[in-house]
Amino acid sequence: MTYCCALKLNGGILLASDCRTNAGVDDVSSFPKYKAFERAGDRWIGCVWSGHLGITQAVIHDLAHACEQAEPGTPSLMNAASMWDVASLFGQALRGARMRDSYLYDAGVDTGANFLVAGQIGSEPCRLFLIYSEGNFIEVSEDAPYFQIGETKYGKPILDQVIHPNLSLDDAIKCALVSFDSTMRSNLSVGLPIDMMVYPAGSLKAAALWRFGAEQDPYYQLLRDRWGHGLREVFAGLPKLQWPVGF
Amino acid sequence: MTYCCALKLNGGILLASDCRTNAGVDDVSSFPKYKAFERAGDRWIGCVWSGHLGITQAVIHDLAHACEQAEPGTPSLMNAASMWDVASLFGQALRGARMRDSYLYDAGVDTGANFLVAGQIGSEPCRLFLIYSEGNFIEVSEDAPYFQIGETKYGKPILDQVIHPNLSLDDAIKCALVSFDSTMRSNLSVGLPIDMMVYPAGSLKAAALWRFGAEQDPYYQLLRDRWGHGLREVFAGLPKLQWPVGF
Repeated sequence: MTYCCALKLNGGILLASDCRTNAGVDDVSSFPKYKAFERAGDRWIGCVWSGHLGITQAVIHDLAHACEQAEPGTPSLMNAASMWDVASLFGQALRGARMRDSYLYDAGVDTGANFLVAGQIGSEPCRLFLIYSEGNFIEVSEDAPYFQIGETKYGKPILDQVIHPNLSLDDAIKCALVSFDSTMRSNLSVGLPIDMMVYPAGSLKAAALWRFGAEQDPYYQLLRDRWGHGLREVFAGLPKLQWPVGF
Repeated sequence: MTYCCALKLNGGILLASDCRTNAGVDDVSSFPKYKAFERAGDRWIGCVWSGHLGITQAVIHDLAHACEQAEPGTPSLMNAASMWDVASLFGQALRGARMRDSYLYDAGVDTGANFLVAGQIGSEPCRLFLIYSEGNFIEVSEDAPYFQIGETKYGKPILDQVIHPNLSLDDAIKCALVSFDSTMRSNLSVGLPIDMMVYPAGSLKAAALWRFGAEQDPYYQLLRDRWGHGLREVFAGLPKLQWPVGF
């Protein structure tokens, strides 16, 4: 499994992914699951993914390859006019990769995959899309400006408590890390390192990139300890329930 | 869906279940999903369940019916010598009900069901079991003295943060309610009211019973507000991450 989340805030975009892949508990590896496409002053496009590793790597390869093509007529992430068109290109590439490998599907292999794609092109505002396995996609809403893919449930309560469009990018980073921490404490299939890209709205240049690599990572460790400690303190301060008469 | 959790602590047992059942979002009802069997001074047995409602109600009916049989030789929850034997009776009843209704299974209906069964018989210590759909079962460990069934993931992080065998029953109540709150905020298929049975170890009499019935329930409301507020305060106090040079 994998856990990825993406936030689209007024201040910009955050994309985060873990690095664990597994095909059974005795076949666990570490693969980055994020990629950015950018041209300073013009566009920044970031994505994270979950699902079948062969399929997702093929999608990224195909999209990157199209960007490198010399022919100016080839549609690519680098000449797409809008983030909507970018999402369409992801959907087409995903459909294409799954069709090519449809023998896998016929053999009962789950070739499903999801992408979270976010970015900004020129004067367009930042946008965030979730690409489904079937290649269709949805855009995030203003009301709940985040998406999750993969092992999503453990880390959702903190997002629901904290996220609103005005959340700062600094707070978004904390929020995503707490969400990953909750997930990793409760589920072995999601594991360190966590890769995080943070793109300030309007910057049109490479995003800030962090890798939280180990349990000993000082910031991650501090956050994790303070969060766990704070949670238990809040818990300790909650009022007691009155017992029925006779107890 | 449903969410149930059960804690076996040094101080006793807590069993909690929500009341929502649904067969699609346009077919949502409210059914209690808990039951106790008790004889003061001798035993207290409590259970909560998730899964196919017809199957689970048949299991409870069959077990209750056996208790009411006059023949002293009929094995029942009332003459079982140990909680292990009680768990076996639940497993047998579940297998029996699913076999009887196997035409449903053949028609593609998911007749799966799970029970959390806990209690105390005579001088035996409190015990807690999880009964699988197949009728086999496991007993809780000392290291992580709780079980969940149904929609388990949203509410697991708080249990992992807080539960240890010495947790008081008062804290167990708070912990279970926070776990339900996290689940209900993030998932519509789990809903109020929440039924909770709390059995103090060694009491060998009816457990304390609460129903948290509505969003307006004053204690539940207070807990929910304080928890959400406290969580956001802890979050606000977490240290900021240093950005890379150039941002």
